[in-house]
Amino acid sequence: MSDPVVAAKKDAGIRAANMVKDGMIVGLGTGSTVFFAMERLGERIKTEGLRIYGVPTSNQTAMRAEEYGIPLTTLTLHPKLDIAIDGADQVDPKKQLIKGRGAAHVREKIVADAAKQFVVVIDSGKEVTGLDAAVPIEILPFAYGSVAKKLQELGGEPVMRNGVKKDGPVISDNGNYVIDCSFGAITDPSALEAAINNIPGVVGNGIFASMTEKTIVIVGGRS
Amino acid sequence: MSDPVVAAKKDAGIRAANMVKDGMIVGLGTGSTVFFAMERLGERIKTEGLRIYGVPTSNQTAMRAEEYGIPLTTLTLHPKLDIAIDGADQVDPKKQLIKGRGAAHVREKIVADAAKQFVVVIDSGKEVTGLDAAVPIEILPFAYGSVAKKLQELGGEPVMRNGVKKDGPVISDNGNYVIDCSFGAITDPSALEAAINNIPGVVGNGIFASMTEKTIVIVGGRS
Repeated sequence: MSDPVVAAKKDAGIRAANMVKDGMIVGLGTGSTVFFAMERLGERIKTEGLRIYGVPTSNQTAMRAEEYGIPLTTLTLHPKLDIAIDGADQVDPKKQLIKGRGAAHVREKIVADAAKQFVVVIDSGKEVTGLDAAVPIEILPFAYGSVAKKLQELGGEPVMRNGVKKDGPVISDNGNYVIDCSFGAITDPSALEAAINNIPGVVGNGIFASMTEKTIVIVGGRS
Repeated sequence: MSDPVVAAKKDAGIRAANMVKDGMIVGLGTGSTVFFAMERLGERIKTEGLRIYGVPTSNQTAMRAEEYGIPLTTLTLHPKLDIAIDGADQVDPKKQLIKGRGAAHVREKIVADAAKQFVVVIDSGKEVTGLDAAVPIEILPFAYGSVAKKLQELGGEPVMRNGVKKDGPVISDNGNYVIDCSFGAITDPSALEAAINNIPGVVGNGIFASMTEKTIVIVGGRS
């Protein structure tokens, strides 16, 4: 563990996992920092007898949960979660986020939204003074042409996310396409989040601006 | 053609089809009234040599287009359409609509939104003084539990749409579930449309309140 970024991710993940209490229903995000949290949760299940159920936000997270021995449930059985733990690609000082580099942002937002508390685990490289990353937008394949046009009208530069080890567009776990759309500096994340959601054919987008009140940000390596 | 409702639907469909001009890209809605329009378009293609391409809003419409000899294209090739023709379940005096009885409302809204002109074909039984039908809402299956909770918080009564000749939930042409959610009298359709769209896990809803300016309503049997 000589890489300081990896060490920071692991620190953030472990601290988040230590916030989880017996009996909780836990939203499990997707990505390397979350997987450190899940590893620690698995450890606590084995050593402390911690009893929890997780709701996974991706196929990858479901597979990791099996590996770490975390029992799973669904939002149908548990529509309200006690806590959700997830990473982020950018975090601003108001705790607004951009997520979706792994194309799991739609289920991640569903799960975070359903949770009483949302714990965001990052290394300090994800902190920004203002959000300006390209916004990942999941869309119905049917609507690619018309959504791209609408995003341009909103001032964005939409780019189809193409696969690696898979020809053509990436397909999300929900069976949809993902557009990465740059808007430059995002002055009003909440308004942009809603405007994108209202384009017909959009399934969800990676701006998380409406859950800042219940969000706790843990920056690995910093107390 | 002795049934006056069927006669009205046919009249509305034929009048809409007669508005289509040579060279147009035409959004093709879904439902019995639209199919009368498509039948007439097929006739005009054969007898007048009308050259058009259609963008279908459902698997059913695509099959009907083949039957009537209407060549098809996609939104990827033609992100802007000249005209879209579709039915509605309720139409209010401001030309706001509720759609989705056939579970095709998400693609229908994508296509209507992409069109310069939106022609709504109905019989007079669809006219209401205020929208109050249950709102069809397409959701990711993953999010059923949490979306239902959020809809209740918005004052709605969500009911899963179950299949007939298919056990369990209806699956839309996009692979998703449909919730029918009653809100009683809908006082601000535009605000409700946006609020539902902003629930994580919602793919789209059947309130059409943001395209009234380009909407023309044709009521069959009334000039």
